[in-house]
Amino acid sequence: MAKVITIGRQFGSGGRAIGRLVAEKLGIPFYDKEIIKHIAQESGLSHEILDDYDEKPTNSFLYSLSLGAYTYGNSITGIPEMPMSDKIFVIQSDVIKNLAKEGPCVIVGRCAESILKDEVDCLSVFIHADFDSRIKRVSEYDNISHDEAAERIRKTDKKRASYHNYYSELKWGAATSYDLCLNSKIGIENAAQLIVDTVNMK
Amino acid sequence: MAKVITIGRQFGSGGRAIGRLVAEKLGIPFYDKEIIKHIAQESGLSHEILDDYDEKPTNSFLYSLSLGAYTYGNSITGIPEMPMSDKIFVIQSDVIKNLAKEGPCVIVGRCAESILKDEVDCLSVFIHADFDSRIKRVSEYDNISHDEAAERIRKTDKKRASYHNYYSELKWGAATSYDLCLNSKIGIENAAQLIVDTVNMK
Repeated sequence: MAKVITIGRQFGSGGRAIGRLVAEKLGIPFYDKEIIKHIAQESGLSHEILDDYDEKPTNSFLYSLSLGAYTYGNSITGIPEMPMSDKIFVIQSDVIKNLAKEGPCVIVGRCAESILKDEVDCLSVFIHADFDSRIKRVSEYDNISHDEAAERIRKTDKKRASYHNYYSELKWGAATSYDLCLNSKIGIENAAQLIVDTVNMK
Repeated sequence: MAKVITIGRQFGSGGRAIGRLVAEKLGIPFYDKEIIKHIAQESGLSHEILDDYDEKPTNSFLYSLSLGAYTYGNSITGIPEMPMSDKIFVIQSDVIKNLAKEGPCVIVGRCAESILKDEVDCLSVFIHADFDSRIKRVSEYDNISHDEAAERIRKTDKKRASYHNYYSELKWGAATSYDLCLNSKIGIENAAQLIVDTVNMK
């Protein structure tokens, strides 16, 4: 069985739900926003700061300066003069590597497929869906209009892609960046089952 | 069961072998180079000319002029003054639509997923593989050196991508252009079985 399943996903594609179901089916831990808790413990940074930086793009120096976050004290990690975004990425990478070393699990987003590429046996998955079905899902889930959902999808995917492509050598959403890519129109249950079947093939 | 399975593929990824195995497992026809025979019957064009244009990129007017093929006679199809490449694409699209209408089948390459998008119930698949394993496959299959194989892979993929992106609104190799993308490192048999399982889920 593959040690770790990483799930990249378009916003509103159902990737999180599929990842959670895969974890349930395999009886292994599931990490999405839960990773932030681990980074907080590791770094002493607040949940609020970590939420602000979670999968957001960075232009490193200028971006961090604009947030007044360029030289967050080096007393905690000993890494001096590093933009906050880069610093969080370093800590997050360590957290993801440590979680992966603990045993099989599902990790959503956060460049996990790239961070773990040469570390552990991984199955990297990308979940996407047609734009209309994502609008439907997001507007229902967040209780907003279709126009608002469309705007949120565009912005979130842009941020995720920029974040990913800044920190990873693999391109977000390119088929070749993942072992398995699925359009979730086959259904959450079916998609999760296909991933489990693939894990059991490895 | 999905009516038609289309297989896009990187050169040397085993996509053709996987497609053939899917067709065998489902007991349905398999079309790759076989499509050329149908285009020849439909158009009266020779196999040699069709081979020259098969999944090759075009810059339409200038490209066709350079091949001296801009105004291939309109007596056959009644489509006047169309670059040869575009004309073959029109005939090829008709051939693919007609094959798809005959019943379930596997069609490899040639923008089939795009041509059939609104025509029949399709499962569109893209097969890729790591560069090293593609070099190994191509050098063994074509009995050439690793360097020659690498060059052939780069050139063929570039042609396929250019051809696809010229004639399709879907981007070649982008996860979102397909229902299912697979790295063939899981094995030809496993990949074919996953596709069959997905077909049977629909």
